[in-house]
Amino acid sequence: MKKYITFGEIMLRLKPPHWERFLQSPLLEATFGGGEANVAVGLARFGLNVAYISVIPNNPIGDGCVRELRRQGVDTSLIMRKGNRLGIYFLEAGANQRPSKVIYDRSHSAIAEASPGDINWDKVFDGVSWFHISGITPAISLSASELSLEAVKKAREKGITISFDLNFRKKLWKYGKAAPQVMGELVKYIDIALGNEEDCQKSLGVKVDVDIESGRLQTEKYRE
Amino acid sequence: MKKYITFGEIMLRLKPPHWERFLQSPLLEATFGGGEANVAVGLARFGLNVAYISVIPNNPIGDGCVRELRRQGVDTSLIMRKGNRLGIYFLEAGANQRPSKVIYDRSHSAIAEASPGDINWDKVFDGVSWFHISGITPAISLSASELSLEAVKKAREKGITISFDLNFRKKLWKYGKAAPQVMGELVKYIDIALGNEEDCQKSLGVKVDVDIESGRLQTEKYRE
Amino acid sequence: MKKYITFGEIMLRLKPPHWERFLQSPLLEATFGGGEANVAVGLARFGLNVAYISVIPNNPIGDGCVRELRRQGVDTSLIMRKGNRLGIYFLEAGANQRPSKVIYDRSHSAIAEASPGDINWDKVFDGVSWFHISGITPAISLSASELSLEAVKKAREKGITISFDLNFRKKLWKYGKAAPQVMGELVKYIDIALGNEEDCQKSLGVKVDVDIESGRLQTEKYRE
Amino acid sequence: MKKYITFGEIMLRLKPPHWERFLQSPLLEATFGGGEANVAVGLARFGLNVAYISVIPNNPIGDGCVRELRRQGVDTSLIMRKGNRLGIYFLEAGANQRPSKVIYDRSHSAIAEASPGDINWDKVFDGVSWFHISGITPAISLSASELSLEAVKKAREKGITISFDLNFRKKLWKYGKAAPQVMGELVKYIDIALGNEEDCQKSLGVKVDVDIESGRLQTEKYRE
Amino acid sequence: MKKYITFGEIMLRLKPPHWERFLQSPLLEATFGGGEANVAVGLARFGLNVAYISVIPNNPIGDGCVRELRRQGVDTSLIMRKGNRLGIYFLEAGANQRPSKVIYDRSHSAIAEASPGDINWDKVFDGVSWFHISGITPAISLSASELSLEAVKKAREKGITISFDLNFRKKLWKYGKAAPQVMGELVKYIDIALGNEEDCQKSLGVKVDVDIESGRLQTEKYRE
Amino acid sequence: MKKYITFGEIMLRLKPPHWERFLQSPLLEATFGGGEANVAVGLARFGLNVAYISVIPNNPIGDGCVRELRRQGVDTSLIMRKGNRLGIYFLEAGANQRPSKVIYDRSHSAIAEASPGDINWDKVFDGVSWFHISGITPAISLSASELSLEAVKKAREKGITISFDLNFRKKLWKYGKAAPQVMGELVKYIDIALGNEEDCQKSLGVKVDVDIESGRLQTEKYRE
Repeated sequence: MKKYITFGEIMLRLKPPHWERFLQSPLLEATFGGGEANVAVGLARFGLNVAYISVIPNNPIGDGCVRELRRQGVDTSLIMRKGNRLGIYFLEAGANQRPSKVIYDRSHSAIAEASPGDINWDKVFDGVSWFHISGITPAISLSASELSLEAVKKAREKGITISFDLNFRKKLWKYGKAAPQVMGELVKYIDIALGNEEDCQKSLGVKVDVDIESGRLQTEKYRE
Repeated sequence: MKKYITFGEIMLRLKPPHWERFLQSPLLEATFGGGEANVAVGLARFGLNVAYISVIPNNPIGDGCVRELRRQGVDTSLIMRKGNRLGIYFLEAGANQRPSKVIYDRSHSAIAEASPGDINWDKVFDGVSWFHISGITPAISLSASELSLEAVKKAREKGITISFDLNFRKKLWKYGKAAPQVMGELVKYIDIALGNEEDCQKSLGVKVDVDIESGRLQTEKYRE
Repeated sequence: MKKYITFGEIMLRLKPPHWERFLQSPLLEATFGGGEANVAVGLARFGLNVAYISVIPNNPIGDGCVRELRRQGVDTSLIMRKGNRLGIYFLEAGANQRPSKVIYDRSHSAIAEASPGDINWDKVFDGVSWFHISGITPAISLSASELSLEAVKKAREKGITISFDLNFRKKLWKYGKAAPQVMGELVKYIDIALGNEEDCQKSLGVKVDVDIESGRLQTEKYRE
Repeated sequence: MKKYITFGEIMLRLKPPHWERFLQSPLLEATFGGGEANVAVGLARFGLNVAYISVIPNNPIGDGCVRELRRQGVDTSLIMRKGNRLGIYFLEAGANQRPSKVIYDRSHSAIAEASPGDINWDKVFDGVSWFHISGITPAISLSASELSLEAVKKAREKGITISFDLNFRKKLWKYGKAAPQVMGELVKYIDIALGNEEDCQKSLGVKVDVDIESGRLQTEKYRE
Repeated sequence: MKKYITFGEIMLRLKPPHWERFLQSPLLEATFGGGEANVAVGLARFGLNVAYISVIPNNPIGDGCVRELRRQGVDTSLIMRKGNRLGIYFLEAGANQRPSKVIYDRSHSAIAEASPGDINWDKVFDGVSWFHISGITPAISLSASELSLEAVKKAREKGITISFDLNFRKKLWKYGKAAPQVMGELVKYIDIALGNEEDCQKSLGVKVDVDIESGRLQTEKYRE
Repeated sequence: MKKYITFGEIMLRLKPPHWERFLQSPLLEATFGGGEANVAVGLARFGLNVAYISVIPNNPIGDGCVRELRRQGVDTSLIMRKGNRLGIYFLEAGANQRPSKVIYDRSHSAIAEASPGDINWDKVFDGVSWFHISGITPAISLSASELSLEAVKKAREKGITISFDLNFRKKLWKYGKAAPQVMGELVKYIDIALGNEEDCQKSLGVKVDVDIESGRLQTEKYRE
């Protein structure tokens, strides 16, 4: 059976019940969320053999996160347990005209503070066919971008197919390097990139003559 | 009417319902806690005129915190709204032999990153009779210890009575300076110190011949 | 900073969760509601300096009400704490064809039993620029209508701008006097009246040739 | 099968969950309570044929109350549906040293405003062997005391056994008549009175030389 | 007052809250459901005199079921309390494109194991004008189909009007007899049959030239 | 790393919240329970490599059960997914004098209807050091007792250590064979039996002169 690996950050997601505003009543629903983990859960639901790799603190909040992934059928045995905190995001569901709101409290998370050497990629990639990563991890810190680069290089060496969800988030790129500089290096090692025009332009610095803010599709320009 | 001020850190307190373990069910009770804020609420309940000073991020989580204090009758108009995050602690209530458990996620909180000059003490202390502080704030970061020192100096100048809850927490003192060095300077400006033998010895470096681990009271030695 | 005051009744609002019918399950959500209090909360959310005036019983239910207003940033220090009960209304949320349902249990509330002299208007109006009132308070009892009249006369004397939400509620006018008789006297002292055609006709007895039941707007007749 | 009837007031009982303080969180548990209704439920649980008589408003809150009694196996077909409101009491459960707290909001309840003639006692007592009443109903209003007297006279005429739980509540006797005056008349018609020394002294004005406040039992004095 | 009787199975209905998936959080809402019981509750809400007949185990789950029916105003005094278990169905509410899902766990229920002689029809039908039954009961087991036949024969003898909701459920007919064989016998005794074209064809084996799967109404063919 | 296997029945456990009576409010907590599964979870918590074997229906309730075990760190990949229903037990927590109450609805469960050949023991026992079983499984049905016997024989052949929790439950032995007859055969293949005097006497028919109902320990008689 083919084996899939996804790698990225997972955070504690705290949300008031239903359509309540933040702290309207003293309850928060506590679940976990992260794009690469969602991909892993989705593949597991289709019955595929999938492991999720991340750096998660070795405390009961981290344990709860790992347990939930395991409950969803994802192989969690390769997760690195290390670091001080799991990133958190607070989500308020919008209603009618009121938009949803997200507050990130993800700085200094275990994975943001991880660096090359923290994960034993030889062990992780043993028997793996497909590796999935996103543009979030290289955006959260310099060391995490280096760890991402280490991962794709190693996967490439082993002939593993690599998919890369560009997922450009302007607000995350704060550690000094520009996205195109980091992402440009990363894409050299990948097989498949997923993204829209904005992701391409902003992540990779590729200037295509497509108006990314008008909302109109200009399909004739994609081929370029 | 006499006016009281308390100053310190307040955190988001996340607790599973009842005696549940962390993340046993996907719900957390979200309230707020901090020793100095508790003192403010207690004084407000006795009908006294009390304000609470802190540095709290200007986001909806910070708003919820300020609102709750205001609901309890505490004057929140002097709180400094600034910084990136409110500290968090996760609490699991013990049951029978199982002890309660606390996980702190308080690093890089707004108040830990505050420094002298961030609070307008002249405005804060206007008309104030009593100022209450604890040994937690000087323990969380170097800049917070400097802010604490600034506060007690200013209060002293204005002839305000200062009470100081020593509250020694070994795990917090991580930024390089030893507790006695910092606390020894602070106590020079205060009127009343609250603490047990351990607090005195560990916070102040005062070596009294009292056995702080036996659990027996040696009342004859207090006078010394 | 300009100061705003709103005056009226606030009630305990008891609602089954979600779209449940009354007492379908043994839970009620307990919040507070009242038009003038809502205006105060709204102004406070815009950052304005606003106080709410009412007569609220001095018991823990009244305390909970005052606390909630304070949490919302409304100045509650001028509220008169007196009387036997806080009015209650039970609300069942409609779903699809089933309309929402309200049961009022507001008779004999603290404010319905208040009368002129109960509120120190000189203190209340000190430094105030704007005073907001509605047609609900004069409708709930004879003594409350007299208290309302006392309020607008006093505000007028002090040159405060007065806004008046006519808000005609046929079912409330039960104490013997007709709405136009009471309201006609009140509007003499106000600056701004808010209401639709029905409010004008029913509250003030103003007969304008507008068909209030057809649902069509007859804008050309407004000027009259 | 013998038939039992109990008669008295039933109220909506609103209680915060668990050991929460009033309005600590925005939830109240909504159940129903009243001594005579409790007796009816108890008898129904033993499998006896029991009806409960009261005056309950004809609105959804009253419906919820009647439904709950019916669920418990009590015959509710004889309840008089009339009046404006169901009495309410708010209950906060004590914890450790903190005592439980009750706030009554029972004035002007449907049964307090009921009077002789409102209940068809001939229909109610048809085929009944036992009638149970308490000292609460005659205490809540003059008209309710007259209704109680009408009930026991009618039951007496029909040869029904009458039990009477004296249950003296000092705070309730506010409508002008003294308890002994009213209760003294009522007990003439009953067969069995239930109560302690205090109930006897305060309800009936019987002066027995027993110290009702010391807490000691003086069994030798009971015979008197 | 005319008396109505409905007869059939009632099950414990277990549903995750709101739109949650099965066992997403560890809570299930526990209510009761069954078509014939629903008819009884509906008639009771219109103020009619209606009893519900079923076979329900004599345990606390059965008690809860009987209590809920009684709360709704249905006469439950004729229900046979016997058997090992109440059938259960698990319901997950759909959302958007996701359809609702039902899992039945109803085999070996008390009523499926009941047989002729278990219910005293003479007592049940005493004073009854109308009897309602459905095609579910004869489908769940051979003995339940025989009990259904016994019921309609007895009702017919007594001149009671009988309504029959055909309600064909292919998945239920598993005990060996074909639906038309059983239902064909039953309909001989009834006055009114309710059903659509599919019910008629599948339950009764009546071959009408109507296309039951196209979704188009062919009204001209009904008369046949 | 040594591998452990436990084998037995797991049931859906439905419990009203806190100390509520069955169906007092319309909520049930839905978790899972079974002695052998509890042992597996316990071992997993100690960090051991443990798999749990059972027969669990292939529906969403079964899925929820498997997921919960996986969340707890138990290897669920060897569970046989087959059969019609997961057994259920309803639990009401006692309070003070009121004892806890359990209602079993476990007949016809997937494992009760499983038989020899349903589980591929060669695959299950591959690399296993320890096998744990209890006296519950052989008690629930004849086919389950045969499956249990097949399991221990196979484990014995492979030289796996077998522990056996006798756990005698009088009410379960209903399928015709006496406990000592079945259990006597099973214990021939095991290494370690766990149980008290009653378990030994009732399960195995071993008559030791120990008074199992007095509650006194007669330690001197154990050696026999």
